[in-house]
Amino acid sequence: MTTERWTYRKAGVDISAGNEAVRRLAPLAAATRRPGVIGGIGGFGGLFAVPPRLKRPVLVAATDGVGTKLKIAFALDRHDTVGIDLVAMSVNDILVQGAEPLFFLDYIACGKLRPGRIAELVKGIADGCLQAGCALLGGETAEMPGFYQPGEYDLAGFAVGAAERGSLIDGSGIRPGDVMLGLPSSGLHSNGYSLARAVVEARWGRGAWRRKLPGDGRSIGDAFLAPTRIYIKPVLGLLKRFPVGGIVHLTGGGWTENIPRVLPAGCAAAVDLGSWPVPPLFTLLESEGRIGREEMLRTFNLGIGLILIAPPQVAEGLRRALRRRGEACHVVGAIVKGRRRVLYRERPAPAGGRTER
Amino acid sequence: MTTERWTYRKAGVDISAGNEAVRRLAPLAAATRRPGVIGGIGGFGGLFAVPPRLKRPVLVAATDGVGTKLKIAFALDRHDTVGIDLVAMSVNDILVQGAEPLFFLDYIACGKLRPGRIAELVKGIADGCLQAGCALLGGETAEMPGFYQPGEYDLAGFAVGAAERGSLIDGSGIRPGDVMLGLPSSGLHSNGYSLARAVVEARWGRGAWRRKLPGDGRSIGDAFLAPTRIYIKPVLGLLKRFPVGGIVHLTGGGWTENIPRVLPAGCAAAVDLGSWPVPPLFTLLESEGRIGREEMLRTFNLGIGLILIAPPQVAEGLRRALRRRGEACHVVGAIVKGRRRVLYRERPAPAGGRTER
Repeated sequence: MTTERWTYRKAGVDISAGNEAVRRLAPLAAATRRPGVIGGIGGFGGLFAVPPRLKRPVLVAATDGVGTKLKIAFALDRHDTVGIDLVAMSVNDILVQGAEPLFFLDYIACGKLRPGRIAELVKGIADGCLQAGCALLGGETAEMPGFYQPGEYDLAGFAVGAAERGSLIDGSGIRPGDVMLGLPSSGLHSNGYSLARAVVEARWGRGAWRRKLPGDGRSIGDAFLAPTRIYIKPVLGLLKRFPVGGIVHLTGGGWTENIPRVLPAGCAAAVDLGSWPVPPLFTLLESEGRIGREEMLRTFNLGIGLILIAPPQVAEGLRRALRRRGEACHVVGAIVKGRRRVLYRERPAPAGGRTER
Repeated sequence: MTTERWTYRKAGVDISAGNEAVRRLAPLAAATRRPGVIGGIGGFGGLFAVPPRLKRPVLVAATDGVGTKLKIAFALDRHDTVGIDLVAMSVNDILVQGAEPLFFLDYIACGKLRPGRIAELVKGIADGCLQAGCALLGGETAEMPGFYQPGEYDLAGFAVGAAERGSLIDGSGIRPGDVMLGLPSSGLHSNGYSLARAVVEARWGRGAWRRKLPGDGRSIGDAFLAPTRIYIKPVLGLLKRFPVGGIVHLTGGGWTENIPRVLPAGCAAAVDLGSWPVPPLFTLLESEGRIGREEMLRTFNLGIGLILIAPPQVAEGLRRALRRRGEACHVVGAIVKGRRRVLYRERPAPAGGRTER
């Protein structure tokens, strides 16, 4: 018989620390409260009333993580923005179907639970929810000894939105001749980081993140850690006035794999390379990593995070409306007849950096 | 300048393996299709129509992982049942609010993506969805080099259910005199594994999982890996005929922390220790780990996974209806006047093992 006297705490799980984390994050979640939320934190599930204005409500659900971008947060010891990335990845997926994000839930897993660290992460998640206009309805913080390296963690996010059944956007309305309008990304967003980190660390070692990024005022680390843009507020309100045929979120798989996801039969996308300014961090990766153009296009967003696809007149109205809201956008290509794939055409780069076209 | 030529694959991320995994899991997800699901896999978000029979639909959302139970799956190299645990943890949380689970999404993170392994995991998830009657609406498989040890992974799950607003169960109807009816668990379910593993491995080393569990026909590993019970089918259909005041899912925090989550002001729960049979794997942990009774009660479910709380007449009807369905249950205590806490009373254990009372 063993003489050891075991407790949950001794085995590496500190329920008191968990409760302390929950106490700290409750006000952060409460700040994201919005119409529809019922009750508070503490129930077994989060409650949300389906918006009564919807006659035939359809729910749109998405899940994603932040991927190895987290390793940059670890390297820089900055943990208050990856939560924004987490929300962005899921709510942008909901936006592309024409739905309004209603609520979000997070899963945080770590080896050793530190309430202060969890609060930093949840602060970013709550910031993202506020940007997206959705409620942080619940979450799970899992202390898993032996799974994660000291100080490290993983995040998963889950968002639910709703749309009127007849207003869903699925790409079926896309036609040859439609215009592709690209909205700038804020950087790599949350994809391609395993490749990006390999290139940067192979070139300059682990200290790379503190170096200045050429052609940019920021350090390489700051540029790579910049949070993913959330496109809900600039775009969602315009979709009623400007009926788009399809929307693409340039996520894992880059241009080459994401655009075909919305193309109907008989349509291809002709993308004009050079029609938008590619930010310095992508050109750095391409040159320092000697990454082929094809690999770049199927891994990174290259400076565009979201593409709206609409007939020329609608696209022109959208472009003007976005400009009035102070949002840059670029005509990055057009829909042509073809077989649900992306064709790349070379065009000279625009003069003057990130000007609107 | 570096002479290395980088690709995403060389950096540890194999998009082809990811696509192969998606191909393998599509039919598994398709088998869980149910009324409400719109479209197929491949869109940016999963689509689900709110059931039109609901006049004032409220969504209930829950998220959870499987915790360090995964380490036992790694030790036994069996990966086709932890997906059932993943679904169970979230859908049981939805059930306790009186809602029907509609759909589920999964997040699987691993260091190196092996399509066969992902298919095993998703097979379990799809099995769980079928047991719960919900659709596997989407998921994310994240290949994260450098995050997880070789062959290891983490899982997170998200479930959404719906209920008529007036039919939500939140414990506010609980009154002193109500009866607590416990439904047997299948084992530890998905909580307390860091402690359980520490005790077992401190006592017998890593080979412990192949040993026979005394008083049980199975090996210790099989008993500890047994998938979490999903209580949807035995319970959900009875809730209309038998209006319960509250339901408790005995999850992380055991009896001591979960029961108060549904108690209204002025109510305490008097639990009769000995009123249900405690399965051998809990008594093994208690004795071999010299774990205190208090620690046992706030860590493990001790053989009961779900507690229905109802007035005596309703509880008696429920008990009979459950028996007709072949479901065992035990009267494990009663609600008394008090301050939202659990009081434990000692009672002799019932004779004859897991008999119904």
